Amino acid sequence: MRTYLDCIPCFFNQALRAGRIATGDETKLKKLLDEIGLMLRDIPLESSPPETGMLIYEKVREITGVFDPYKELKRASTEKALALYPALKNKVEKSNDKLLTAIRIAIAGNVIDFGVNRNFNIEEEIDIVLKKDFAIFDYDKFKALLDKTDEILYIGDNAGESVFDRILIEEMKKPVIYVVRAIPAINDVTYEDAIEAGIDKVATILSSGTSAPGTVLETCNAEFKKIYKNSKLVISKGQGNYEGLSDEKQPIIFFLLKAKCWVIANDIDVNEGDIILKGINT
Amino acid sequence: MRTYLDCIPCFFNQALRAGRIATGDETKLKKLLDEIGLMLRDIPLESSPPETGMLIYEKVREITGVFDPYKELKRASTEKALALYPALKNKVEKSNDKLLTAIRIAIAGNVIDFGVNRNFNIEEEIDIVLKKDFAIFDYDKFKALLDKTDEILYIGDNAGESVFDRILIEEMKKPVIYVVRAIPAINDVTYEDAIEAGIDKVATILSSGTSAPGTVLETCNAEFKKIYKNSKLVISKGQGNYEGLSDEKQPIIFFLLKAKCWVIANDIDVNEGDIILKGINT
Repeated sequence: MRTYLDCIPCFFNQALRAGRIATGDETKLKKLLDEIGLMLRDIPLESSPPETGMLIYEKVREITGVFDPYKELKRASTEKALALYPALKNKVEKSNDKLLTAIRIAIAGNVIDFGVNRNFNIEEEIDIVLKKDFAIFDYDKFKALLDKTDEILYIGDNAGESVFDRILIEEMKKPVIYVVRAIPAINDVTYEDAIEAGIDKVATILSSGTSAPGTVLETCNAEFKKIYKNSKLVISKGQGNYEGLSDEKQPIIFFLLKAKCWVIANDIDVNEGDIILKGINT
Repeated sequence: MRTYLDCIPCFFNQALRAGRIATGDETKLKKLLDEIGLMLRDIPLESSPPETGMLIYEKVREITGVFDPYKELKRASTEKALALYPALKNKVEKSNDKLLTAIRIAIAGNVIDFGVNRNFNIEEEIDIVLKKDFAIFDYDKFKALLDKTDEILYIGDNAGESVFDRILIEEMKKPVIYVVRAIPAINDVTYEDAIEAGIDKVATILSSGTSAPGTVLETCNAEFKKIYKNSKLVISKGQGNYEGLSDEKQPIIFFLLKAKCWVIANDIDVNEGDIILKGINT
């Protein structure tokens, strides 16, 4: 997905939100916004938003001196999600379509996103997403491809959300490579976060090599790019990965997300708040 | 009021909103945001938001080549307000406290603000504000000072809103100088807009000389500054004028506004959406 003009004010909001978690020093925060202001000229609208996200979180680290501002929030999200895990597993067990319920739970977990908004209620979100109609629902295609594949490349999004991903991974009953970011960006899942979520018990964890809050292929490492290119089935969670991969011509990718901002909703041609299971290159 | 860090993303939103009304050319709009990005460094947090607003709307004019992007929207607002005028006069006539009802109507008109949000429903807003409790209500002080004064300096805010101001001016039954902006900034009221609202029938219209979307004294002309300094009772409408004048040590000013953004609400120590009649230096 390209950068829309409306992403630009949002970049400043994101920087301010991350910066404030790292420091209360207004002078540093003003400097952070000033430097992002100076960067704007060099951000073409043709680039994808997480490419800029990467530069923004580099600036946050550089100016505040804090490497991982969301560390504690990420840990708390994972603990909260782990506490919900048994009840969620029970919901899956009791449902008529276990795979679909697990997909819905994985999407509900996508609300744990400090990049878009800090205010969310995960329990409420689960109840909503378990009942909500999908705006795009390529479920039959997904099931058919899942049956045929011998491995799934599952690109994670946020810490905490990974616990919900684990439930879907367990339900798919196929070998999974779970992709994490190399360096903390917002509350995106890193290797350490994935371990805390217990992903290592159900999948092989792989770093994409990027420090962007999304899968920006040019910034990924060779190993990831090779596996990605040869993958028969990719699951891409959340907005940041959608933004990075939505224009890819191959491989087969299923986007699993809630459209949390109207710019992305508009790009997908759904409404803000909609949930989607959308396959491309199928 | 100082500039808060949260005002900075909002400056970009405002520029984009005004720019889009002037042009659909994405290259120009991107250039506009880029140039505001370059300006950021020179905007101290000690300055008031309308000082920056002035620079932003200068840039909008310069880059889009459109002098008054909101011209048609302003005209439509005034026509809409004029159509409501007879019914509003009737509401005042039938009320137990005519002056207070006129104050409430003048505040309701403050919702016509394309700087904060383009979406509003003026009829709904009138119904809400006619019943709403004031978060700050210096009405007794206001009435006492109104009784004693022989002239009111009434600083207008938005076009369209002026029709609602006219109702309050008519109810105060004292000579009024109605202050307008010298050059269009957002949908702020200018001389021409005030005439369309019929302000010339009930008050003397005076330009403050500023092109800022608020009363930034350093940018005002000598005539306005002299009258302002010697004024016994100033009524300041809306957020932009509050932002410019809230820290003044004299003269007596009554701020009449709805707190439409949380930054201003926080500065006044009320909640977003609250209405206030707040006197300072009384």
